[in-house]
Amino acid sequence: VKFAGTHLIIDLWDATNLADPEHIDEVLRQAAVATGATILHGHFHHFGPNSGVSGVLVLAESHVSIHTWPERDYAALDIFVCGECNPYLAIPVLKKGFQPGRVQLAEHKRGLVG
Amino acid sequence: VKFAGTHLIIDLWDATNLADPEHIDEVLRQAAVATGATILHGHFHHFGPNSGVSGVLVLAESHVSIHTWPERDYAALDIFVCGECNPYLAIPVLKKGFQPGRVQLAEHKRGLVG
Repeated sequence: VKFAGTHLIIDLWDATNLADPEHIDEVLRQAAVATGATILHGHFHHFGPNSGVSGVLVLAESHVSIHTWPERDYAALDIFVCGECNPYLAIPVLKKGFQPGRVQLAEHKRGLVG
Repeated sequence: VKFAGTHLIIDLWDATNLADPEHIDEVLRQAAVATGATILHGHFHHFGPNSGVSGVLVLAESHVSIHTWPERDYAALDIFVCGECNPYLAIPVLKKGFQPGRVQLAEHKRGLVG
């Protein structure tokens, strides 16, 4: 069985630092590097003071994204990596950076071929 | 029940035009607009002639991504939109743009609160 990569859907609840684009940028880059990935491009958009942030990193091995709702202490992330990268190695970095009370995960194997 | 948005995981099999970054950029923008979203930023990386493309659009309503494997006629996309946007309205645009033999979908409601 071969597959193109692992796509991890990550929800952070009761999390902190969700309205700070520089912090989010830095944590996401650390998280991507922790998986073993190479960052090609990053873009983070701040919707306004005390408002949410949407950001993406394009990786040589696919992408990382984050969308934050600071008013709900909630952030929706995904990490899609192919090759030898391990997306689960990003989780400790995200926990340290956003101090979530709860982390919810779902995994998709993308491009599975039997 | 409230939720932050709908995250659609889309796999295209037996698809075409997967090594053409300009075409992919154009189709993804049309697909994003079809959902009702507003595009804030886009970036598409071509891994080389006849090679795959990785691209993202950051939306006011979250993001769209694509990663293509032209050597397998396979592309892995996701569309995450919140608010009034309907990610399923992107599917006809993707079918027209990439002529896939098969489309596989999975849906996550993100940030569900009971």
